Amino acid sequence: MPERKGKYTISLSSRPRILGYASVVGKKEGEGPLEAGFDAVFPDGRLGEKTWEKAESRLQKEAFTRALDKVGYAPSQVDVLFTGDLLNQNIASTFGMRESNVPLLNQFGACSTMAQTLCLAAIFVDSGAADVAAAVTSSHFCTAERQFRFPLEYGGQRTPTAQWTATAAGCALVGMSGRVHIEHVCIGRIVDMGITDMNNMGAAMAPAAADTLMNFLKDTHTSPDDYEFIATGDLGVEGSALFKMLTAREGHKIGENHFDCGLLLYDRNTQDVHSGASGCGCSASVLCSHILGNLENGVWKNGLFMATGAMMSPTSSQQGESIPGIAHLIHFSVE
Amino acid sequence: MPERKGKYTISLSSRPRILGYASVVGKKEGEGPLEAGFDAVFPDGRLGEKTWEKAESRLQKEAFTRALDKVGYAPSQVDVLFTGDLLNQNIASTFGMRESNVPLLNQFGACSTMAQTLCLAAIFVDSGAADVAAAVTSSHFCTAERQFRFPLEYGGQRTPTAQWTATAAGCALVGMSGRVHIEHVCIGRIVDMGITDMNNMGAAMAPAAADTLMNFLKDTHTSPDDYEFIATGDLGVEGSALFKMLTAREGHKIGENHFDCGLLLYDRNTQDVHSGASGCGCSASVLCSHILGNLENGVWKNGLFMATGAMMSPTSSQQGESIPGIAHLIHFSVE
Repeated sequence: MPERKGKYTISLSSRPRILGYASVVGKKEGEGPLEAGFDAVFPDGRLGEKTWEKAESRLQKEAFTRALDKVGYAPSQVDVLFTGDLLNQNIASTFGMRESNVPLLNQFGACSTMAQTLCLAAIFVDSGAADVAAAVTSSHFCTAERQFRFPLEYGGQRTPTAQWTATAAGCALVGMSGRVHIEHVCIGRIVDMGITDMNNMGAAMAPAAADTLMNFLKDTHTSPDDYEFIATGDLGVEGSALFKMLTAREGHKIGENHFDCGLLLYDRNTQDVHSGASGCGCSASVLCSHILGNLENGVWKNGLFMATGAMMSPTSSQQGESIPGIAHLIHFSVE
Repeated sequence: MPERKGKYTISLSSRPRILGYASVVGKKEGEGPLEAGFDAVFPDGRLGEKTWEKAESRLQKEAFTRALDKVGYAPSQVDVLFTGDLLNQNIASTFGMRESNVPLLNQFGACSTMAQTLCLAAIFVDSGAADVAAAVTSSHFCTAERQFRFPLEYGGQRTPTAQWTATAAGCALVGMSGRVHIEHVCIGRIVDMGITDMNNMGAAMAPAAADTLMNFLKDTHTSPDDYEFIATGDLGVEGSALFKMLTAREGHKIGENHFDCGLLLYDRNTQDVHSGASGCGCSASVLCSHILGNLENGVWKNGLFMATGAMMSPTSSQQGESIPGIAHLIHFSVE
């Protein structure tokens, strides 16, 4: 049963488990350093579909289906689906899961959505509201680029602080069997420090990541060194540096145990992605390959996953608004 | 504690309560039959803000602040906010709640979002994940019209089956005191019967409403006559007729206890809204005035609130996709 611990943290006393997981990615992601951990790499960005939006829906469906197949579950054994993506009105999720026949609640937390969906799935299972819950999120470079920035054909130059939206999806199933436990979740607040540069999302999200981590450490009376890893996603180069600076200012020096999902997905020396990867699919695919894989295999036994989101829209930015950030945290453990 | 009851229903054994609520609306809604129940009517569609989007954010903030003020709570006493709206990337919610400092999870269920947010708030409180949770949603005629249809200046003709997006917001606070209990929630599945007419959302949503109601009745071994009211929102004229036809076909005749939020908000004889009202703010403002008011005052003691959503986007419709519907149900009772 969930119990409040301190002001922001929710302790999950039944310690729900990761029942299964899968990640599927596009060509560029398949050429990156995490290739071996993905369940499928699709060399065709359209996945045989007519449009990029339909291709992104297909990524969600593939991630969900493969996660179920790997553990021999049918969709009808899933009680609730928490889904999300970056597209207007969450169409990648809705159309991707349309045929699943599973009760569905679409989430929007920008690039933090994998953590948001997994928080809810874990709380539902811990509380008894669901026996099995799924968290599925996606992003696609081509759908995001034309929705948030420019038509692909325009070939716009990217600034050095810009991030590259991952073509990827991840699905994590939560239930009561599996090696990896979810001990705590910490839901984030909106933090807006007045950043307005849409090409520097990392800077907009870093203060939110620092805020959520500080809240969690205070609530649990722990320090960064208590965890084998602290994974943020997707702060990129600039955001990661700022995140460490902000936490240090609060008296918590973050060391070698930190990594950023946005800096893991691509090889920045050879793949020309500037400040790193972003998109709901980035932290989703890194979680559902590298992170859960290393937990399952006993490489890590205790760590934090904290996806971050920049909650703007082209309309809010055009109207002169700054970029609100948010970050949600999940504490994993293995016995 | 939440317990699964049948395949789709979640029984909330602590029976969490509506701690407080508020609704705020625009001029047209204030001229409708429910005027007396609203906490504020804003004659200026911009609420003194520079843009309609900022005005919609302001509606959310007003609903949240007024709901708290009415019961003497501070924002810091709210553990989690479930928010939602129709705008791309949920900006009405994000910017409306930016200064609240409360952990936030944005939801997207199109016009079903008030039921979706309230389901989650109720589950969080019942499970112990939150002591107090808030559900807040909004819509605004001008932001929706220009995002989903045409520029306002174009003055496009509306088809007879079209609905009118309400300028309104509602907030319900869930806690452990208050007269009105939440007994059960039932999370809906996506139902897509192939409707492609963006001007006939009611028809696209009616099958989802029927599906969720049938699931709930089966799980709880009850019939429509067991409830003093069955409120749908927002099916409009066509959708309501279709909803009754579909439930009758399943052997459940729905009688005089049914009403549709979309048909209550305006006076259709004098207000030229064609098939009725729609938008997240419609069912939110009807719930947080008429429905909760009548429950609190003892007029009703037992009823169902079932908001419905059409989960399309202009992009999905332009790409030839049909309109997926969804409906979530909340069972209220008063001792």
